[in-house]
Amino acid sequence: MISSAEQTSPHSIYFIGAGNVATHLAKAFHRAGFRIAGIYSRTEASAHALACQVETDYTTALDEVKTDADIYVVSLADDALIHLIPQIAAGKGNALLVHTAGSIPMNVWQEHAVHYGVLYPLQTFSKQTEPDIRQTPFFVEGCSPDAVRLLKELASALSDAVYEADSTQRRMLHLAAVFACNFTNHLYALAEELLRQNCLPFDALLPLIDQTTQKIHRLSPAEAQTGPAARGDKQVMQTHEALLAGNPRMQALYRLISESITEHNTQNLCIK
Amino acid sequence: MISSAEQTSPHSIYFIGAGNVATHLAKAFHRAGFRIAGIYSRTEASAHALACQVETDYTTALDEVKTDADIYVVSLADDALIHLIPQIAAGKGNALLVHTAGSIPMNVWQEHAVHYGVLYPLQTFSKQTEPDIRQTPFFVEGCSPDAVRLLKELASALSDAVYEADSTQRRMLHLAAVFACNFTNHLYALAEELLRQNCLPFDALLPLIDQTTQKIHRLSPAEAQTGPAARGDKQVMQTHEALLAGNPRMQALYRLISESITEHNTQNLCIK
Repeated sequence: MISSAEQTSPHSIYFIGAGNVATHLAKAFHRAGFRIAGIYSRTEASAHALACQVETDYTTALDEVKTDADIYVVSLADDALIHLIPQIAAGKGNALLVHTAGSIPMNVWQEHAVHYGVLYPLQTFSKQTEPDIRQTPFFVEGCSPDAVRLLKELASALSDAVYEADSTQRRMLHLAAVFACNFTNHLYALAEELLRQNCLPFDALLPLIDQTTQKIHRLSPAEAQTGPAARGDKQVMQTHEALLAGNPRMQALYRLISESITEHNTQNLCIK
Repeated sequence: MISSAEQTSPHSIYFIGAGNVATHLAKAFHRAGFRIAGIYSRTEASAHALACQVETDYTTALDEVKTDADIYVVSLADDALIHLIPQIAAGKGNALLVHTAGSIPMNVWQEHAVHYGVLYPLQTFSKQTEPDIRQTPFFVEGCSPDAVRLLKELASALSDAVYEADSTQRRMLHLAAVFACNFTNHLYALAEELLRQNCLPFDALLPLIDQTTQKIHRLSPAEAQTGPAARGDKQVMQTHEALLAGNPRMQALYRLISESITEHNTQNLCIK
């Protein structure tokens, strides 16, 4: 049976890279009915594994990458990407060349390609988990209105949340994601450490963490803010800082975040 | 029809306070078949609303609180609790008197009551949401083995996650919760601010935030750590710090949390 998606996706896509992002994107495009023209990875096992899953060929030599695909999606580590762009772009003519990196500007392609852009999925991809691509926000940037149109079409085939974002905005998205995900995860790690030192199970915090996350689906984080700093409870804050006396960095963090909460709360009160 | 819970719950519980914690606990005990002996709140509307929901009487005068209940659960703001304990305990004889506060030690009861303890639910309660009490961890502390036994029995009637914790541990739980919930929420607020300044929607971060939270149900936060600091990507960190030049406090936060991640990662590598 040929699905309607297969009938309406004339574009073929070649993947440069076979890591987590490339794997999830290639599988999603394959499921959406796109033809995957091939896979390149310098690691044969990764290239082979992904090629099998999306019914295509692979190569481990960059100069053997086919030149007749419509679109090349490049998902490599940032430094490899910068380094390999001239080789990747060579001989690809009018194909659309895109990378998927949050912090690399679009203009890295400028001197090497005619049609280029960025397809940035704002999600954390890992081998073990299968995130819901349909819910994953995609941010696209293109060198021309045609490139933007094609990138929006591609992203919309996978996701219901497609936005345009220039390179400055994308860099800010990446920075915001570091605060909202990498840094919050580290605060979970610090909480775990405090509990472990006092023979308490980290799992006991999970219902509270889940509730905190669910809350910001309904309220803005500024509205959802609670805790000693938000209510100006100086006595509890002093007790907490004293409890952290043996860990100067955690104590400094406690103070700095509390000050930041206090400052934001004051701003909010002034606005109201 | 009398449910088995009603048949097996001979204890009557009086609630001092009708705020969020008292409301959720009183309703949960009522559902579990306990008799709610009465409600005290100095705010008549709150006292009345809760009393209706749990089929009991209420009063707004502390000296009119009935003295024949088996258990008194006190859920007041920290400073009100400290201030009112002598009045609350007066004339309650052999009843079990407990408070529900994370950062108040059990011994605040010592000079005023014979049987006392703490029943601390580690959850954020608000009017709008109905958290799953059965999943909410309860930490109990009692002045005697009998008090501990009764508190465990009470907590187990509501929740599948009942632990013992002394006052020091409970204070640490509260501090850990500030890091894992209040502080993470503030990082969401900072991320929102960065995005808003760049005309980007905060909602775009929600799938990534959800994925981050789901991950620590399977991995320890230390194992789940990703991002520029975790992989030692100095170039991205420098770019991010430069982007925050206009906001010295956020820049200081970026640097301090990144240093803390780096330090923890180094420790983990040494252990492995």
